[in-house]
Amino acid sequence: MLNKEEIRDWLVSLQERICTELEHTDGRGKFMTDAWQRSGGGGGVTRVFVGGKIIEKGGVNFSAVWGRTPEAVLRSMKLDPSDQSDFFATGVSIVLHPFNPMVPIIHMNVRYFEMTNGTWWFGGGIDLTPHYVDEEDARYFHRSLKQICDQHDSSYYSKFKDWADDYFFLKHRNETRGIGGIFFDYLKGDAGFTKETRFDFIQSLGNAFAPLYINLMNKNQSLPFTEKEKQWQYLRRGRYVEFNLVWDRGTKFGLDTDGRTESILMSLPPQAQWVYNYQPEDGSEEQKTLSMLKKGVDWVSFQQSAKS
Amino acid sequence: MLNKEEIRDWLVSLQERICTELEHTDGRGKFMTDAWQRSGGGGGVTRVFVGGKIIEKGGVNFSAVWGRTPEAVLRSMKLDPSDQSDFFATGVSIVLHPFNPMVPIIHMNVRYFEMTNGTWWFGGGIDLTPHYVDEEDARYFHRSLKQICDQHDSSYYSKFKDWADDYFFLKHRNETRGIGGIFFDYLKGDAGFTKETRFDFIQSLGNAFAPLYINLMNKNQSLPFTEKEKQWQYLRRGRYVEFNLVWDRGTKFGLDTDGRTESILMSLPPQAQWVYNYQPEDGSEEQKTLSMLKKGVDWVSFQQSAKS
Repeated sequence: MLNKEEIRDWLVSLQERICTELEHTDGRGKFMTDAWQRSGGGGGVTRVFVGGKIIEKGGVNFSAVWGRTPEAVLRSMKLDPSDQSDFFATGVSIVLHPFNPMVPIIHMNVRYFEMTNGTWWFGGGIDLTPHYVDEEDARYFHRSLKQICDQHDSSYYSKFKDWADDYFFLKHRNETRGIGGIFFDYLKGDAGFTKETRFDFIQSLGNAFAPLYINLMNKNQSLPFTEKEKQWQYLRRGRYVEFNLVWDRGTKFGLDTDGRTESILMSLPPQAQWVYNYQPEDGSEEQKTLSMLKKGVDWVSFQQSAKS
Repeated sequence: MLNKEEIRDWLVSLQERICTELEHTDGRGKFMTDAWQRSGGGGGVTRVFVGGKIIEKGGVNFSAVWGRTPEAVLRSMKLDPSDQSDFFATGVSIVLHPFNPMVPIIHMNVRYFEMTNGTWWFGGGIDLTPHYVDEEDARYFHRSLKQICDQHDSSYYSKFKDWADDYFFLKHRNETRGIGGIFFDYLKGDAGFTKETRFDFIQSLGNAFAPLYINLMNKNQSLPFTEKEKQWQYLRRGRYVEFNLVWDRGTKFGLDTDGRTESILMSLPPQAQWVYNYQPEDGSEEQKTLSMLKKGVDWVSFQQSAKS
């Protein structure tokens, strides 16, 4: 049966492959490597992109940590808080902020958690945050995710798409972070699934990341943009900061439980701006994008609206 | 006996006076006025500084809101969650981000809360966040606060100073936000205090805000600075964002309970930057500042260290 070392080793190789492919596509930047240890057990390798041409800031993080299961983890997972089991958690987490506002921000996370009492599950997700929504890209992104999901289970896409809509949501703005994607957690050995079939899905998603984003990089990285569009990018990055610091459970959990701050906050953009009560002009591309940041949009069959 | 209308009216006049004095000192910028209403009862007037010479972004907010006390408020204040009382809350909240990195960021909040069941208290605080700690300014700031506190109670300063050290603290960075100040909450009619004597203290603090900050503006606004120092300001503003979005209870509470987002996030800087694992050079002014962002520093009698 699949063991945690195999999962960990696959995640290490995934990190390596994604870094190599992104370096190749960017053509100039390199991933520097920062290994760290966790005092309670385990550690990680944070890989931060430096000197890029297409990607301005980003990272591809791997970690594998273990030790006595913290009470906060048990409570957050609604398990018996007095359980004395040890835990093991491993994952890869990615956020990429491009220079060009016509290239979307992307995020992916795949993770595995187990306890010595036999509990285990997979979690993760991927979502796209365009500064300007390109309907063709949005359809491509969601169709690709649906295709990956459908290979494993016909219920995955719609369930995980809705979950992403709910998760990547800024309640205080009544806005989704971007066009969503898929989000899932607690994928266990139930409903006919085994650890192997759950892991198959995780592998399909992980393997799809680089080709998916590289397509979007290549398609958009040479598009012209104005200073006004760059300003809009900074404002949208401000929203990204708000989501990650106010709503993202992974970030909050890490910061609350003495996680490695610099690896967790690798997700923040290089710069962000805030303007009091900024309202895009009626009929502008900025307003059009804002109007699409809603839950429940069917991106797979989204119809191109009339060009203004 | 002092009633809520008198407190509210005084806060309205405080907002007005502070805006006038800051406009006068800045010499160019103006406070625009944005009035808003709360669907559950009450509303506020957000005044946002625009076009400044010394102050780049900031606001002076007044609000007075009322209605059925939300369960979340009752729980957060450890009161009976089934209490059907109405509440009334009013306050003034200020954050100012200057252009020149040699001028510190300042924040003040004074507020009053009461319930129809007779419960009432005052809360508030003021703290200074220098991008570069100037020891003379830090002493001046804390000595001024001590003087204000001592006029009202000999225990106020040391108690409220320690409270500020604990409150304005970024646990995930093991750093205080700046050089602190004072923070207090739940100042009730106990230990020999009345509503009047508690309010006297609030008034002293509110009245001291403008002269205090104007002194720091005038003293530092013409100091020269380099591009490197400006970059450091952006990184420190990033920490300010982290504090406000991750740790500030007022911000979290407002965003969780459907507060007016733009008024709450008025506290965010115009721009902020994040650089992975940035470490200032040994012996630099930046490192010196970082080394002082600790709890428990006795700023009132802080001795100037040898100039490097």
